[in-house]
Amino acid sequence: MTATARPGTLYGIGIGPGDPELLTLKAVRTIEACAVVCYPEARGSSGKVLAKDIATAALPGLAAKRSLGLHLPMTRDAAVLAANRDAAAAAICECLAAGDDVCFLTLGDPSIYSTYIYLHRLVAARGYSAAIVPGVTSFAAAAAELGDGLVDAEQPLHIVPGAYQEQGLELDGEGTSVLMKSGAAILGMLEQLKDLERRGGAVRIVENCSLPDQRIWRLDEITPEHKPGYFTIVVAKPAPCRPADAAGAWASPIQTD
Amino acid sequence: MTATARPGTLYGIGIGPGDPELLTLKAVRTIEACAVVCYPEARGSSGKVLAKDIATAALPGLAAKRSLGLHLPMTRDAAVLAANRDAAAAAICECLAAGDDVCFLTLGDPSIYSTYIYLHRLVAARGYSAAIVPGVTSFAAAAAELGDGLVDAEQPLHIVPGAYQEQGLELDGEGTSVLMKSGAAILGMLEQLKDLERRGGAVRIVENCSLPDQRIWRLDEITPEHKPGYFTIVVAKPAPCRPADAAGAWASPIQTD
Repeated sequence: MTATARPGTLYGIGIGPGDPELLTLKAVRTIEACAVVCYPEARGSSGKVLAKDIATAALPGLAAKRSLGLHLPMTRDAAVLAANRDAAAAAICECLAAGDDVCFLTLGDPSIYSTYIYLHRLVAARGYSAAIVPGVTSFAAAAAELGDGLVDAEQPLHIVPGAYQEQGLELDGEGTSVLMKSGAAILGMLEQLKDLERRGGAVRIVENCSLPDQRIWRLDEITPEHKPGYFTIVVAKPAPCRPADAAGAWASPIQTD
Repeated sequence: MTATARPGTLYGIGIGPGDPELLTLKAVRTIEACAVVCYPEARGSSGKVLAKDIATAALPGLAAKRSLGLHLPMTRDAAVLAANRDAAAAAICECLAAGDDVCFLTLGDPSIYSTYIYLHRLVAARGYSAAIVPGVTSFAAAAAELGDGLVDAEQPLHIVPGAYQEQGLELDGEGTSVLMKSGAAILGMLEQLKDLERRGGAVRIVENCSLPDQRIWRLDEITPEHKPGYFTIVVAKPAPCRPADAAGAWASPIQTD
């Protein structure tokens, strides 16, 4: 850091679920105003979902901007996770110290199960400014693709990460459950989901929501050998309490655009 | 409907929590392409939060577009609700039948506790096309304003409407709870929220998130005589399971922009 540089700010930008048109005006303006753009080098086991590609489709000028690819692979090894995050935060802070504003592109929204939030905390702990620009979540986008609401008026909505599903989740409570990142994790939930449907509930499965290879699965298509990829949203609605509520269980046709 | 007109499509547009910059590119493009824009005539008991005003700030051309104000006041009278919704759907279908595309502006996201979804179903039931454009939810925006994530990696996130709070909600489960539209409803939750803080949890309260009159409240400021308005989000985080997680309980300073 030179003696004269005013430190930059880190912006965690939610770029939405995949469709470049689901970036907000604020995301576009903030990315444009930052000197440096950074993003995880690869995200998702398929390697196909890249935050930078999505944002570049909305902002062609992004390709010419100085970029910082950060090595943040998914792992359950806590020491490796911490070391990678520290290294990424240090690389970001180096830019901030030089006076550059930095944006980090994250799929969906930064406050809901994002890797960004750990970098946000590390960078803030080093004394730099860090701000969040919210984005469209994948479950809101999945509901839009399915063409109906997620939850009826007086019911709660439960957002459940993949890891939690593996620990054994009860779907007997009130309200709708949204299971996130349900690629392999859905296998542990299959019997419960089928039972929910037998009891009058409704289950919908959206893989790669809002991306060109989006696919809507039926529950009975899924087997241990044939299952959707990592970026899969399962929406599990309870059986309607009153007959009038049945219209809420995807009575309207599925929207594909 | 003339014999020649091709029916229009209804678009339910999530315009985000209030900041006009939180409209998505898709929302802006879709609103611009529609011949008719409709919206609830007034929303919120204060009458200050108007979807049309927010969208007009992002799209000045909106003011010149043909508009349809719909009478959809909040009420618990099911017959009045149904009659108002039927009348609103009929007014929309009249435009669709004439061949006009219609957009309905809704705060936040259309799939999460919106009035729009009922019109969507009624319009679809009358045989017209209806599609949803997802938006940034108020709770994602509240997390951004508070400057940290909503939920730690392996925990569920519970979104709870105001009506459910009045029925008595347990905050003893795992994960973070977000209480929506908590103006008066928060009074029924005060003791539980204070108890959560005593046990090491963290509670944050954001009124009119992302609007010019946004205010962040402390729990101990709220009394039956002095409470936030209808558009209030409460985020209730559990006590951290592991000391390392404590950094997640809003260790970083609150972001106000």
